[in-house]
Amino acid sequence: MALIVQKYGGTSVGDLDRIAHVARRVKATREAGNEVVVVLSAMGGETDRLLEMAHQVSAHPARRELDVLLATGEQVSIALLCMSLANERCAARSFTGGQARIRTDTSHTRARIEEIDVNAISRALTAGEVAVVAGFQGIDQDGNITTLGRGGSDTTAVALAAALGAEECQIYTDVDGVYTSDPRVVPDARRMDTVTYEEMLELASLGAKVLQIRAVEFASKYNVTLRVLSSFEEGPGTLITSEDATMEKPLISGVAFNQDEAKLTVKGVPDRPGIAAALLGPIAEANIDIDMIVQNVSEDGTTDMTFTVHRRDYQAAFELLDRHARNLDAAAVTGDDRIAKISLVGVGMRSHAGIAARMFEALAAESINIQMISTSEIKISVVVDEKYLELGVRALHAAFGLAEQPPRNQAVKS
Amino acid sequence: MALIVQKYGGTSVGDLDRIAHVARRVKATREAGNEVVVVLSAMGGETDRLLEMAHQVSAHPARRELDVLLATGEQVSIALLCMSLANERCAARSFTGGQARIRTDTSHTRARIEEIDVNAISRALTAGEVAVVAGFQGIDQDGNITTLGRGGSDTTAVALAAALGAEECQIYTDVDGVYTSDPRVVPDARRMDTVTYEEMLELASLGAKVLQIRAVEFASKYNVTLRVLSSFEEGPGTLITSEDATMEKPLISGVAFNQDEAKLTVKGVPDRPGIAAALLGPIAEANIDIDMIVQNVSEDGTTDMTFTVHRRDYQAAFELLDRHARNLDAAAVTGDDRIAKISLVGVGMRSHAGIAARMFEALAAESINIQMISTSEIKISVVVDEKYLELGVRALHAAFGLAEQPPRNQAVKS
Repeated sequence: MALIVQKYGGTSVGDLDRIAHVARRVKATREAGNEVVVVLSAMGGETDRLLEMAHQVSAHPARRELDVLLATGEQVSIALLCMSLANERCAARSFTGGQARIRTDTSHTRARIEEIDVNAISRALTAGEVAVVAGFQGIDQDGNITTLGRGGSDTTAVALAAALGAEECQIYTDVDGVYTSDPRVVPDARRMDTVTYEEMLELASLGAKVLQIRAVEFASKYNVTLRVLSSFEEGPGTLITSEDATMEKPLISGVAFNQDEAKLTVKGVPDRPGIAAALLGPIAEANIDIDMIVQNVSEDGTTDMTFTVHRRDYQAAFELLDRHARNLDAAAVTGDDRIAKISLVGVGMRSHAGIAARMFEALAAESINIQMISTSEIKISVVVDEKYLELGVRALHAAFGLAEQPPRNQAVKS
Repeated sequence: MALIVQKYGGTSVGDLDRIAHVARRVKATREAGNEVVVVLSAMGGETDRLLEMAHQVSAHPARRELDVLLATGEQVSIALLCMSLANERCAARSFTGGQARIRTDTSHTRARIEEIDVNAISRALTAGEVAVVAGFQGIDQDGNITTLGRGGSDTTAVALAAALGAEECQIYTDVDGVYTSDPRVVPDARRMDTVTYEEMLELASLGAKVLQIRAVEFASKYNVTLRVLSSFEEGPGTLITSEDATMEKPLISGVAFNQDEAKLTVKGVPDRPGIAAALLGPIAEANIDIDMIVQNVSEDGTTDMTFTVHRRDYQAAFELLDRHARNLDAAAVTGDDRIAKISLVGVGMRSHAGIAARMFEALAAESINIQMISTSEIKISVVVDEKYLELGVRALHAAFGLAEQPPRNQAVKS
């Protein structure tokens, strides 16, 4: 008998009909001979409704109390699903974060799970019940209610799967898997059967937002087999696992992109130690997140440093930088918020210089000028004018043959 | 420094403005030098909204899960009030039933409080915080969420006041106190300054529904001084306490009434042991509550037995009884659902036969025929045709001079 953890997001439990649908799916999994732990988000829109109330009371609501308020959202979902499971004659028992003994640190609204005592849940499973657990929430060591931050239900599911030694952690969402690119941009984008944790991390942070990054990190750390699949359609979804398990891995798994960024360049920065920190410090203090940072070799004792921020932070970052650059004797600050980032992701590209060349050729063939380049172990990102976004993504998707099924059971050697 | 428990009902926390109003009232109590524990109901309408969802899922939702669902209502209220208190710069901390360690038995949806460990609340008070506790809910010994049933927040407040040894338990509601009768029927009905627990019990069960009966019983048992007052207007409200404390007690405290009942009479019942049980057994089995039961002396070996049920149960009770009476050789079943019950309540009437006479005279003076009479230690109830309800209530209110202030500091001797 396998133990399966299933997580259903806000859309999947958006109304009572959908909750009934989830109940039938859970029952089917149970009747297939599995033990089942279900993790639920709040009904779609509920968390926003509660947040709105809190913000009507106060611009900065007390974070401890915000957690008490928000935790009610998932508590409603678990109760309703258990009632719905009773209709299906499927024994079930709900658990709030506290009842599931999901112990977190005390960082209200963004707590981290420290420990799960699975005894209570195990007792329910042994008694033949489905355990229905409120996602997104826990309690700290003093019994205060905490929440894990947006999307924290994915993390709850993975953490429970790890603690219970589950066979698989299934994340039900409104897409039927992870794609080689966004189907809205690349019509022949293909659902992948498998993808590695590392690829998923790069894909997730770049826009294929079907899974919380923290959940993937957690899964990778504890080697939990994840599966992303649709709660509305049947299908195998996409398996997310460690590299060893994916023998049929192609070089490249997908093309991700991001149109939410803006770039800022500080020109003629004196090339001396500490200068990067001095430039970026004020940006970080203003709570502006930085994505890419590119600095090329210096020339004549000065260098240019370019980085990207979220587009909404562009003006603020520009002004901060402009003020600050003068004190550092930099020549000028320029920027552009009409850019797009395109990234090629794949564990297969490791130590594979040929990939980059093929990527740049494919873009050149479409006369797309590359403004910035940044690479990681399994990713090459370029920044281009945003008008080339679709063209560039499609060109790369085609150049690497991503629409075709990879050969199965065949290891790719570099 | 006195410790005050304040309970605010659903109307008092019906929207964010009202919650802000409650916050100011709590702060004022705190600044007057008191320690304050606040008990809240769910925002008005919220419990019904949740119940409606549950009943859309299932006609008979699992009671354990119903409690998980309903408990969210108060949890929302306590979080929002704490945020609102923060706006008033009044330190506060919310407690769910479980966090307040209100331990109940395991009877979901109608649990009874068994024990309260007040350590957590006391720590908050010692730290200078207002403790804001979710009413209506607790946990059983296994950590399951339970609820106390409708109006259970009053019981939570009284139980906390008892456990903490509070000076006073203030029940804020939408009326400014307990009246000698319903002001909608008797325009010169007067707010009472004090009333005893026993009188309150009789008044509450008869229609003056400002306080849950269970809460009054609890207060009486643990000698908790209760005060009913308005959350919308200033004023001393009505103090509910034990008899000793109310020296200025008049003979009669109020005239209650009830128009929701119907009466059923079984005529010519053979007068033998066990007949009452045999008649009423099927009614009880059908979960029909019986209020008054009147049986007079028998004549010719048979007797008539009359009782009252809620009007909505009239048809069902009539049919049950009709079928059953034949087996018992009773002569006939008759009934009437156009009746009203009027009750005179007052601890002062104990061993005071004159009161009944004066009551019947006052009704006779208005040509009101009395159909049934039933009495308890501190109450005399009569059943009359419902068309005489207002006339009868006003006649009694006037006959006993209830509109006038009772003389103060003067014990009434019978």
